[in-house]
Amino acid sequence: MTDKADPESKPVEAPSPPPPPATGINLSTVDVALRVVLFAATLVSVVVMSTAKQTELASVPGVPGARVSLAAKFNHSPAFIYFVAALCVVGLYSIITTLASISVILKPNHRTIFSFFFVLGDVVMLGLTASATGTAGGVAYIGLKGNSHVGWVKVCNVYDTFCKHIGSAVAISLFAAVVLIALILLSVFSFHTKIRK
Amino acid sequence: MTDKADPESKPVEAPSPPPPPATGINLSTVDVALRVVLFAATLVSVVVMSTAKQTELASVPGVPGARVSLAAKFNHSPAFIYFVAALCVVGLYSIITTLASISVILKPNHRTIFSFFFVLGDVVMLGLTASATGTAGGVAYIGLKGNSHVGWVKVCNVYDTFCKHIGSAVAISLFAAVVLIALILLSVFSFHTKIRK
Repeated sequence: MTDKADPESKPVEAPSPPPPPATGINLSTVDVALRVVLFAATLVSVVVMSTAKQTELASVPGVPGARVSLAAKFNHSPAFIYFVAALCVVGLYSIITTLASISVILKPNHRTIFSFFFVLGDVVMLGLTASATGTAGGVAYIGLKGNSHVGWVKVCNVYDTFCKHIGSAVAISLFAAVVLIALILLSVFSFHTKIRK
Repeated sequence: MTDKADPESKPVEAPSPPPPPATGINLSTVDVALRVVLFAATLVSVVVMSTAKQTELASVPGVPGARVSLAAKFNHSPAFIYFVAALCVVGLYSIITTLASISVILKPNHRTIFSFFFVLGDVVMLGLTASATGTAGGVAYIGLKGNSHVGWVKVCNVYDTFCKHIGSAVAISLFAAVVLIALILLSVFSFHTKIRK
């Protein structure tokens, strides 16, 4: 999966200092590149989360010596289901806007009105990604540390691989949120340079 | 502060429907109003969350008949502490930007550069508010429904008033996130109208 993301992120780093060459085409290229990175991040995050599965032997309370194999899966928690659903929506959105952004480069007539709707969509998707990250992160933290006040036991000491998957997925979605912030600022910056001209 | 702003905003309020007469001053007034609403929402949300406290009698496991009074407080969960901290930051930010936005109305010279930094801040605050809402909401959902897979018991059947406080605080912070989205779109819309001129 990382092999797939690497060649996509290279073109972003090539024109790395965005402010000085503030031409319209340059910003559009960075926009497309960031959207591809966003798609890669959401795809990796969804795959890592949905492949989180671990089966361990657990003792049965009340029956000494008896052990039963119990599986931990991401869909045992509504928070993780919401996470996957939200990031699927963001991933789908990133595909559509990547194509739209490429079409704007090819036909720059409707650039201004398009970029207005891009910002609108990006802002809503940022809210979705951040809330999904928070939800999954909050539940994962209880799994990691437990909560002695309400008697919620920690599970990550047993299901270690499962928790690593969850943690990685949350970290990648945090990265996706940062990419969305960069996309919004890029749009606003391009508006700004147009006003100054 | 409002007395000072009133003589400036009076000529604005005469053409009251905001979208058709899209003058700069009109949008600035809406901006200030939305920032005040944002401050009120974050303040109410923090107060409702931090006053969430309920003491109930609970039976002691292993000792039949013994009962002990147990308090539920918001600071028993790291998720709720993060929620309060994040919304305090957003509340503080809304105070500062309300004053800055009023100063822009009074001296419109630096409007463009100011509004760029407003969007930057608003976007980061949106991410913070959405993630805080998600974190608190995810943990509150476990409190409401429990999770049988990992043996986390629900607590809202006992601590009903406590859970109502948590739920209300999460709902109000969701509203604050919507206000932030509106603020960002307002800024982008004002950029847009300037480009069209």
